[in-house]
Amino acid sequence: MKVSFQGEPGAYSEQAIFEYYGKVETVPCETFDAAFEAVVSGTADSALIPIENSLAGSIHQNYDLLLRHDLHIVGEYLLRVRHCLIALPGVKKDDIRKAISHPQALGQCAGYLRGHGIKAEQVYDTAGSVKMLKESGAKDTAAIASRRAAELYGMQILEEGIEDNPENYTRFLAVEREAVVPKSEAKTSIVFTLKNQPGALFKALSVFALRDIDLTKIESRPLQGKPWEYLFYVDFIGSAQEEVSKRALDHLGEYAVTLRVLGSYPRFKG
Amino acid sequence: MKVSFQGEPGAYSEQAIFEYYGKVETVPCETFDAAFEAVVSGTADSALIPIENSLAGSIHQNYDLLLRHDLHIVGEYLLRVRHCLIALPGVKKDDIRKAISHPQALGQCAGYLRGHGIKAEQVYDTAGSVKMLKESGAKDTAAIASRRAAELYGMQILEEGIEDNPENYTRFLAVEREAVVPKSEAKTSIVFTLKNQPGALFKALSVFALRDIDLTKIESRPLQGKPWEYLFYVDFIGSAQEEVSKRALDHLGEYAVTLRVLGSYPRFKG
Repeated sequence: MKVSFQGEPGAYSEQAIFEYYGKVETVPCETFDAAFEAVVSGTADSALIPIENSLAGSIHQNYDLLLRHDLHIVGEYLLRVRHCLIALPGVKKDDIRKAISHPQALGQCAGYLRGHGIKAEQVYDTAGSVKMLKESGAKDTAAIASRRAAELYGMQILEEGIEDNPENYTRFLAVEREAVVPKSEAKTSIVFTLKNQPGALFKALSVFALRDIDLTKIESRPLQGKPWEYLFYVDFIGSAQEEVSKRALDHLGEYAVTLRVLGSYPRFKG
Repeated sequence: MKVSFQGEPGAYSEQAIFEYYGKVETVPCETFDAAFEAVVSGTADSALIPIENSLAGSIHQNYDLLLRHDLHIVGEYLLRVRHCLIALPGVKKDDIRKAISHPQALGQCAGYLRGHGIKAEQVYDTAGSVKMLKESGAKDTAAIASRRAAELYGMQILEEGIEDNPENYTRFLAVEREAVVPKSEAKTSIVFTLKNQPGALFKALSVFALRDIDLTKIESRPLQGKPWEYLFYVDFIGSAQEEVSKRALDHLGEYAVTLRVLGSYPRFKG
């Protein structure tokens, strides 16, 4: 099995692939678009795409790519983002004066670095910072990246979990050419737009509330240049193949201007 | 007047400050937290904080900072993000072989760069890429950053608006120590949590629907480690000082476990 992802080898997305699929071949892609296209063209069997992060929010661009491609969500995975302090083999933690990584990762470890008197220096990528460190041979410098990146480059993990906020999770979606019929507890992701009318969203949500269907996500996204028009992202518990979900989606179709089921898939169990 | 922001001089946030406040003194801060603290301590009178981007989504961390600080939203501004291709004075567009910028900016201009045969090279910051280019003196290289960054470093804008998707907007919130009573059409931002009960969100939204109050944003944010608990972000049209809003918020208080009004402020008019 081949799974595409956006990023370099050792990226957090690649780590999520190994945790979710087990031993598979990974296909690194420069852009998210390329990761989707790899599945469309058959270069990859599946893509694992980050869709939201507990600190940084939903990744709208990847919703756009889901809408633009005729692919299906077939699974989800929640990765606890644990940043590692990574150094050359033999280096001790006390030797570290400087840490290099992507600005977001440095920001998420700012408290730790300050507490240890380590200066932060920004580079363009987390996994790339490990590669750069290995090439430079610097003994007073650490990189901040995933466990996977450390292993890939044969480097030493001085400490794992150095992020200031442990509630740092990224939710990934597995995307394939064929839809699945989930056997265990299912979740369904949909995207819809509504007419610009008072109470439109309230009516739309009634189709779920009236049937005791639990929502696990709701998000409005303004359509730019159209001040009163929105896309809505909703995830609910249940599979689109179940009778009650079918009825709810049918009912929603009466209000919605557009409605797209992105996929039903087994719910992630921690 | 002094206004704090996260980033280096020339950052998009600084450009937004000049467009929103006019001629003021800016206070660059390394982190968002520091930008908030500058207002708390009185170093700055106001902070301008990005809260959502039309492509990248809501910035949850900044909602967290709004909740953590006893400050008030007093205004909003929508910045159209227009990336500029920036070079040394005298350089021609045909000379450019390489572009340097933050990965996100490069990604947003990927189509343009490909079409012009320009290679992308990632650096840590948009405004920083202009500074680096000026220092290097490279005549075959361009930086991608804001108009403001080009002006600040006395550089030449070869082309403005090179982003592939023109629907690239960032919404900023102005945050101050004292709340305001908006005179023009108002918007109010609230954050609340609900009991884990079926239909809880539907009931919560009824307090607005029953009073014909228009929502301009709704977003659920899962509370990690608490699989069925969520924060909700809602923006609605109206000021919290108006009778109908007061009643709706009072009514919402019956369902909500926690409820915080982040501020009422004049609605942005494009």
